[in-house]
Amino acid sequence: MSSSYGQNLKISTFGESHGGGVGVIIDGCPPKLPLTEADIQKELDRRRPGQSDIVTPRKEADECEILSGVFQGMTTGTPICVVVRNKDARPSAYNEMALKYRPSHADYTYDSKYGFRNYEGGGRSSARETIGRVAAAVVARKAIESLVSGVEVIAWVKSIKHLNAEVNPNTVTAEQVESNIVRTGDAEMVQPMIDFIKETRGDGNSVGGVVECVVRGCPTGLGEPVFDKLDADLAKAMISLPATKGFEIGSGFAGTQLTGREHNDHFYMEGDKVRTKTNNSGGVQGGMSNGEPIIFRVAFKPTATIMTAQPTVSTDKEDTELTGKGRHDACVLPRAVPMVEAMVWIVLADHLLRQRAQNGL
Amino acid sequence: MSSSYGQNLKISTFGESHGGGVGVIIDGCPPKLPLTEADIQKELDRRRPGQSDIVTPRKEADECEILSGVFQGMTTGTPICVVVRNKDARPSAYNEMALKYRPSHADYTYDSKYGFRNYEGGGRSSARETIGRVAAAVVARKAIESLVSGVEVIAWVKSIKHLNAEVNPNTVTAEQVESNIVRTGDAEMVQPMIDFIKETRGDGNSVGGVVECVVRGCPTGLGEPVFDKLDADLAKAMISLPATKGFEIGSGFAGTQLTGREHNDHFYMEGDKVRTKTNNSGGVQGGMSNGEPIIFRVAFKPTATIMTAQPTVSTDKEDTELTGKGRHDACVLPRAVPMVEAMVWIVLADHLLRQRAQNGL
Amino acid sequence: MSSSYGQNLKISTFGESHGGGVGVIIDGCPPKLPLTEADIQKELDRRRPGQSDIVTPRKEADECEILSGVFQGMTTGTPICVVVRNKDARPSAYNEMALKYRPSHADYTYDSKYGFRNYEGGGRSSARETIGRVAAAVVARKAIESLVSGVEVIAWVKSIKHLNAEVNPNTVTAEQVESNIVRTGDAEMVQPMIDFIKETRGDGNSVGGVVECVVRGCPTGLGEPVFDKLDADLAKAMISLPATKGFEIGSGFAGTQLTGREHNDHFYMEGDKVRTKTNNSGGVQGGMSNGEPIIFRVAFKPTATIMTAQPTVSTDKEDTELTGKGRHDACVLPRAVPMVEAMVWIVLADHLLRQRAQNGL
Amino acid sequence: MSSSYGQNLKISTFGESHGGGVGVIIDGCPPKLPLTEADIQKELDRRRPGQSDIVTPRKEADECEILSGVFQGMTTGTPICVVVRNKDARPSAYNEMALKYRPSHADYTYDSKYGFRNYEGGGRSSARETIGRVAAAVVARKAIESLVSGVEVIAWVKSIKHLNAEVNPNTVTAEQVESNIVRTGDAEMVQPMIDFIKETRGDGNSVGGVVECVVRGCPTGLGEPVFDKLDADLAKAMISLPATKGFEIGSGFAGTQLTGREHNDHFYMEGDKVRTKTNNSGGVQGGMSNGEPIIFRVAFKPTATIMTAQPTVSTDKEDTELTGKGRHDACVLPRAVPMVEAMVWIVLADHLLRQRAQNGL
Repeated sequence: MSSSYGQNLKISTFGESHGGGVGVIIDGCPPKLPLTEADIQKELDRRRPGQSDIVTPRKEADECEILSGVFQGMTTGTPICVVVRNKDARPSAYNEMALKYRPSHADYTYDSKYGFRNYEGGGRSSARETIGRVAAAVVARKAIESLVSGVEVIAWVKSIKHLNAEVNPNTVTAEQVESNIVRTGDAEMVQPMIDFIKETRGDGNSVGGVVECVVRGCPTGLGEPVFDKLDADLAKAMISLPATKGFEIGSGFAGTQLTGREHNDHFYMEGDKVRTKTNNSGGVQGGMSNGEPIIFRVAFKPTATIMTAQPTVSTDKEDTELTGKGRHDACVLPRAVPMVEAMVWIVLADHLLRQRAQNGL
Repeated sequence: MSSSYGQNLKISTFGESHGGGVGVIIDGCPPKLPLTEADIQKELDRRRPGQSDIVTPRKEADECEILSGVFQGMTTGTPICVVVRNKDARPSAYNEMALKYRPSHADYTYDSKYGFRNYEGGGRSSARETIGRVAAAVVARKAIESLVSGVEVIAWVKSIKHLNAEVNPNTVTAEQVESNIVRTGDAEMVQPMIDFIKETRGDGNSVGGVVECVVRGCPTGLGEPVFDKLDADLAKAMISLPATKGFEIGSGFAGTQLTGREHNDHFYMEGDKVRTKTNNSGGVQGGMSNGEPIIFRVAFKPTATIMTAQPTVSTDKEDTELTGKGRHDACVLPRAVPMVEAMVWIVLADHLLRQRAQNGL
Repeated sequence: MSSSYGQNLKISTFGESHGGGVGVIIDGCPPKLPLTEADIQKELDRRRPGQSDIVTPRKEADECEILSGVFQGMTTGTPICVVVRNKDARPSAYNEMALKYRPSHADYTYDSKYGFRNYEGGGRSSARETIGRVAAAVVARKAIESLVSGVEVIAWVKSIKHLNAEVNPNTVTAEQVESNIVRTGDAEMVQPMIDFIKETRGDGNSVGGVVECVVRGCPTGLGEPVFDKLDADLAKAMISLPATKGFEIGSGFAGTQLTGREHNDHFYMEGDKVRTKTNNSGGVQGGMSNGEPIIFRVAFKPTATIMTAQPTVSTDKEDTELTGKGRHDACVLPRAVPMVEAMVWIVLADHLLRQRAQNGL
Repeated sequence: MSSSYGQNLKISTFGESHGGGVGVIIDGCPPKLPLTEADIQKELDRRRPGQSDIVTPRKEADECEILSGVFQGMTTGTPICVVVRNKDARPSAYNEMALKYRPSHADYTYDSKYGFRNYEGGGRSSARETIGRVAAAVVARKAIESLVSGVEVIAWVKSIKHLNAEVNPNTVTAEQVESNIVRTGDAEMVQPMIDFIKETRGDGNSVGGVVECVVRGCPTGLGEPVFDKLDADLAKAMISLPATKGFEIGSGFAGTQLTGREHNDHFYMEGDKVRTKTNNSGGVQGGMSNGEPIIFRVAFKPTATIMTAQPTVSTDKEDTELTGKGRHDACVLPRAVPMVEAMVWIVLADHLLRQRAQNGL
């Protein structure tokens, strides 16, 4: 269904930007994993608006509550429902949005599909929807860590428009990324990126960029032949995030500039472990993990909301003009990092349980 | 499951390169659509090895048989099973593959996942698996055409390594693409691409490239918010194809070099139709089609099989060496074109039926 | 997944007897259906404890809140989350249940499956779980009524132990059933059943019985061949309700006492409508509705909680004894009626949308 | 989808009575299980027409072929496709069926749903469809036996019309059932049942009855709370079989005649094993197996095809008459036994893999 993901660890998100709240049900989670609201809150705070002076200053407390599936601090194996109440409701700010379609937003397509839409704050298309994903990922991660040890998922801002960070996926640490508000792994690019985002915001404009992500310590054999390949599911998961326009794994699009002789990853033995000399495959071969770091990149377009008058059409199909208002991210990249990581944990956990079902661990 | 795709039009493929055969079940197809084996055969012939002198000369007759779900030349609404018998079996050619992992193939990951693999011709990881997809797409296309008219899906070879074709997605025709054995839409690049593929093959090497695809005439509102976004499902479908390393839609990765002011697609009225001036969104906004052409690109890596000795490891975990043998594509791109188109029809048909279920057509 | 049901109209329930609350997400609902909390509350009140003096006097306010998916009083097509907060928490009442397995309850099997359980009030196995189903059914019913008119779902108490009601499924009305607190359709059995339930409760004992249900006005052709037959899905839906031990449709088990000559339902024309003279099929043939009333019966066992000391075992595997405490239904039948109806609406709505997807309406 | 079943072990059947063939894909099967066509053929022969002189004398060779998913005699973990070619095609026998609806068959509902049907031999509604289920069950059983030992599934004919067999579910053996052509477990009822079936057939009439089934040695904790309860899934599986009208587990409908005091199953320790003194629960509590024998009964109506003129309507909606022709079972019960067992193995295998995914084994 539209708002559910996963076969064995299944998440179902709900909620709009304004209204009662947003949240998620996580079903199929192994029992007896310690889980508290504080565990989830910590990750929600990483995606929260207002966390630094380069993201939207909008205040969203985003306090989560676990409604079910946890007893005496441990998962029970039954559905875990996490809800975050909406607070910062200012419906009046959206009167104009009720009547005009914001360019490059989902207003028109929602109306086109359903003949009706919740226009307050983007409704279901708001980035607030990702709160449910981030909460689910905390559970997914705990499920993985209860079954295998040493799995690391680290994402970082690889580029913001023309500013490229140099980051080694094999060695970068979560601490390095989290040490700066841009969430890039290249210390030298921190200040230029911050300055550029502020400058862009000052100009009422917006920018996009690329998030890169590595999974280290992934067991071999995750992912399934044909449709549910691990890289295919990661691609879907990433392109399901708001504002994404591209996904590539390993050598990606640049790999088309190599010949097979240059591109092939030669196997060799490192002790009793099968390794590859290069990693153009990006850790996935034939749709299954091969034990090398899984490395992929995701393109995020510049935020659609800008503080400029733009031509558009009205809901009654007249040409008109609309000027962005409110408090928005001039660059979504720093907040996209935890969203990317969240989707990876969710995909990996489902595949790990599927692997356990068919092949054991 | 690993080998099934779709919610309302569901396909389940089966089969290995060698063994009894390959095929597909298509379930949920609307009844009373005319369907013959010849309809399917025509598309199978487009993906078939041996169809021209720039693809593998391997002979695969690929004759399909419809086992069920069709009566008196029409679909009955019950599962349609299409099977293609395997013929060109030469097990002896694979003795070495039983004992050594081919670099950048799925041999090692299959063994790692299942502890066992069908090594003949790559088994389930063979491109023969896509026969089921291509057959299913014929049914999917008929389902779509029975419900809406004017939907076109056209893919072409956009680039082979450094050779880039200039093709206008808004005007290119299926005839232009099919008129040349490379399946590119740029007449001037046909001969250079043919020459380059032959040269590469002569050198025992291989190359990759990019396939671009356009969907014209797609109804608005296809795709669903959150996980099953139309672009997310297209991304998954494409990365589920063999040898793919990247997917991008609309402005894609290049779009990260624009500001929001440059990137936003302004709406305007063209008669009574809502259009956008630019199409950086690639025809999808918020995961739903907006009526503009859906344009995306898929990166295919260079074919892994090359006629050169390469270091690798054996199944008993010793360093060794392996030289490619047999008749393989030096460049998979011309045959990838119908595979890309097939997956688009399959994704669109499922989303069209889902749309019909929830919102009517 | 364990707590999800449906393909096109999908519901996912969550929640335990004690803890934050219980509820449901409904995904895939057609847009623009009027929906208020009052609509849902009305049905919740029918399943509520404390509604009459023959059901448990336990107080559960069961006030529902719609958290998402509704805007300006109408469904938006996105997931509808309904939550009911838990209130009447008295954990101390359950100390003994933490250490001993109640006979014929799910305590032991939960522990056996998950190695851990929420023992307060039965946790996830509590009948409070059905709140989510009843809420979802309100939405399901609205979805059906927006697409076809004249569908009626009426269930009633057919028997309580040896007391059998005479009810004509073809003519019984919802008003007749709802006019008495037993929810039977036979006016003459109302008082005997009430007396018998009170007597049973006075004795600290419990009784079960049979709920019968009719669907009138169901469109023909709902249900799908093979696994997802309409009767098969109704069977699953009914046996998924707490305390059920049997399901039969049409002639049911008694039909095995007839010969084919007696059992076959002869077709005849009634105006331009195909009818059957008898209805041993119970309105379903080959798994699809044939337009006749769908009639089925569900067996509910006597409530497991009784006010008597019973032998059992402790969680540390010692023989012991346990006496039921608290306020429980001596007979679950009156409250089972709305649960049965709820599951029918849910099953029908999903099949109606599936039908619309494949075959149109 | 209509013709698929299962979450982790998923089967998809296809095929009509006449046409190319019938079969099944089994996906998600653990790898390295020994599997041959002979293994499958043995069970197909148990459901085959013509196996004895009390079933239809129709000749169906039903020779199976494994097309995929098995290599060197072992499952590979990829989809297993089994196909059985149709042979005994006599389309002329069905000319009248094209124009008239057989009473209590699925002819009318198929036409009503799809507006079109394969009328030869009942098309998809033919009992030949169960060939795919029986084949899949062989794989399901092997999957179970590779993970847990000692699981037995035994079904038998409990009654044919008024003739009731006395069978002890706790001690009956597969050999006892298979030793007689009726497949009942009561030696004294064999000849009366055989005589009665022959007499019924001689009269051109038909009879139904009840199949009882026991699962012994089922691990505890199989089945999931709420919708996918083990008994709910068994109910669905049974009612998905052709000609079934009822399902009951444990005390079933008769259990409604007991009070809670009589009905409750008291726990006690037998060594270190938790047992129950009685088994009114039928081995399932709260939807999960409790380690006691799972005992259920399924009602099969009398076969719809009888050799008598019956009133019916034509496809162009006129009252008319139809007389059954051809070679049919006067009593489907003996052949229903392997079908019931097949569905149990399929349901159990899926739940065992789901259990393994979430909770380990």
